[in-house]
Amino acid sequence: MMTITQDGQPVYDIILDDSFHALSGFLRTYDPACRKKYCIVSDSKVASFYLDAIFSIMNKHTGNTDNIITFVFPEGEKSKQLATVEQLYRLLIGNNFHRSDCLIALGGGVTGDLTGFAAATFLRGIDFIQIPTSLLAAVDSSIGGKTGVDLDSYKNMVGAFHMPKLVLINTSVMDTLDGRQFVSGMGEVVKSALIKDAAFFQWLTGHRAEVESRKPEAMINMIENSDLIKKNVVEADPYETKGERALLNFGHTIGHALEKYMQFSFLHGECVLIGSLLAADISRKKGFLSEEEWEKIRDYMESFPLPDIPKDADVDAIISYTRNDKKAGADGLKFILLSGIGRALISREVTEEDMKESLEAYIKR
Amino acid sequence: MMTITQDGQPVYDIILDDSFHALSGFLRTYDPACRKKYCIVSDSKVASFYLDAIFSIMNKHTGNTDNIITFVFPEGEKSKQLATVEQLYRLLIGNNFHRSDCLIALGGGVTGDLTGFAAATFLRGIDFIQIPTSLLAAVDSSIGGKTGVDLDSYKNMVGAFHMPKLVLINTSVMDTLDGRQFVSGMGEVVKSALIKDAAFFQWLTGHRAEVESRKPEAMINMIENSDLIKKNVVEADPYETKGERALLNFGHTIGHALEKYMQFSFLHGECVLIGSLLAADISRKKGFLSEEEWEKIRDYMESFPLPDIPKDADVDAIISYTRNDKKAGADGLKFILLSGIGRALISREVTEEDMKESLEAYIKR
Repeated sequence: MMTITQDGQPVYDIILDDSFHALSGFLRTYDPACRKKYCIVSDSKVASFYLDAIFSIMNKHTGNTDNIITFVFPEGEKSKQLATVEQLYRLLIGNNFHRSDCLIALGGGVTGDLTGFAAATFLRGIDFIQIPTSLLAAVDSSIGGKTGVDLDSYKNMVGAFHMPKLVLINTSVMDTLDGRQFVSGMGEVVKSALIKDAAFFQWLTGHRAEVESRKPEAMINMIENSDLIKKNVVEADPYETKGERALLNFGHTIGHALEKYMQFSFLHGECVLIGSLLAADISRKKGFLSEEEWEKIRDYMESFPLPDIPKDADVDAIISYTRNDKKAGADGLKFILLSGIGRALISREVTEEDMKESLEAYIKR
Repeated sequence: MMTITQDGQPVYDIILDDSFHALSGFLRTYDPACRKKYCIVSDSKVASFYLDAIFSIMNKHTGNTDNIITFVFPEGEKSKQLATVEQLYRLLIGNNFHRSDCLIALGGGVTGDLTGFAAATFLRGIDFIQIPTSLLAAVDSSIGGKTGVDLDSYKNMVGAFHMPKLVLINTSVMDTLDGRQFVSGMGEVVKSALIKDAAFFQWLTGHRAEVESRKPEAMINMIENSDLIKKNVVEADPYETKGERALLNFGHTIGHALEKYMQFSFLHGECVLIGSLLAADISRKKGFLSEEEWEKIRDYMESFPLPDIPKDADVDAIISYTRNDKKAGADGLKFILLSGIGRALISREVTEEDMKESLEAYIKR
């Protein structure tokens, strides 16, 4: 277990376990008199796997199924829109949800982000709990209070910072992820190691087989290390107003642009892996990263099965999408580079030409 | 001028003046290098009166009309929906608005609330400025950081707390308000006096004629006093998590229900005036308020031209709407009563029967 703090005060716990049972213990402290209503939010696929388990834990706590409702929406990024959130609002109104009630996000990043946004904005803010069921959500999106939905093809354009009351990670669910989803989660794991923790990167390269076969101890160690890195960054900069949190954007500038260009047929973490590789390449070309470290990164990255960018992709179009980057400001794009494995920096000197060159070389490789 | 603080730190200023010109001075400090983009948001009616004036002040500052865009939406509460906010998001994306850019809400409560919500949620939060042009907005909605939109017929169901960078009140615009709008603003003025400031209530009863004819000195004094009350309450409880801010809900429990039942054909402040009168009546019946003070309140309230609730109104239906009150919790409804003129308290003992009785008597009077 680790605790996310703000100004030295505990805000919420992240519990890592090999089951969902820790939820019971949390509820006994959080809602001892069982007076709250809960809405479990999940997509159709995750619901079919885990909704019953969560419902039964909740029901054992409340002793009253009337206080637990569920909202299941169609699986996929397409659901991460205001229209889905609006349906959820209507369900909450119809069931007389009040400020003291609570949402439970059971699922991957889409579920966590949209449930968190609904919680941030329903009645100007109600509680929510994150139960991430994908590696990507467990190591990234469930932690740090970023919530939001997409607008048309623009990712996370609409959102809010809203902290969960609990993040409960059941590492045993990682077994059920398909190969691409798992690799996608690895994108954020590798990114975290690269920007902050050389020893963790070393561990990752040394435990490739255990990680690939999702050995329980490897999963726990890996998720814990990733979450610790994320914890330290978000505590230092909870609302992305200082520089620190921008470092988490490593690999994301080109990654997001590629994701959009590919119309989300590539997964987020797959794009982050490619974006990270290209950002490392640019770091090397700009003289920040040594050849030796670059090769280590490249070799490790290339061990992942990544989708191919079509040879005839419109590189200019991909790069043009980086202009919509949320982190861009009046001063231009902040691009995250590496000055070594485990050390990142913010650069304002990466041009579209730089990105284009690396991307073209990658596509042709 | 007054400054709203949080934890002792200044957050934003409220400037009261008889023109819009103070905006120039603010911009010189806020955006000295003129690097920001601005979007002025206004409804069709207010835009026809004041958009040119604001645009020209902005333009003088930026020296570049390319950096100023406008978003004008159809006048009325019907526009206060996610659909309008979604149009605004699209305009901002289309014009490459970034986190460092700024929205300007020029108008009444609808404009301020929806612009504030867009600012709270676009890219997880950008700056905004409030330029309230109705009395209601000047004394209430523009101050305190509450933003939001309605969902179907449910008022302010979706929202966020998001503080403006500046509230600029041009008292001369009060001249152009029609009679009903002006009375509506008086609803929040009277409410503020009743919950917090007996001397101000005394002043109001003694200056009825000057207020009614909107004499400039009376307007400035009245708005300043109301804003000071609101300032003190929101500073003590910025996110409505303590009891203090709930006091501002005086007159609003029945007021909101009536507003909904009348399908918004009654204005918000008209409903607050009626709701305040009924809450004072309940306070008297519960033995909190003396007969003498009750009569003072009743006589003053009845001097306002208020719309008649139809004699055959379904009182049960009106009261049933109070169950959706945002401030309700698992412990039931918090109803605000008066223990005297200028002194309010939170009661959990007001029943639907109590409300019904007072409302029926009011309708039959």
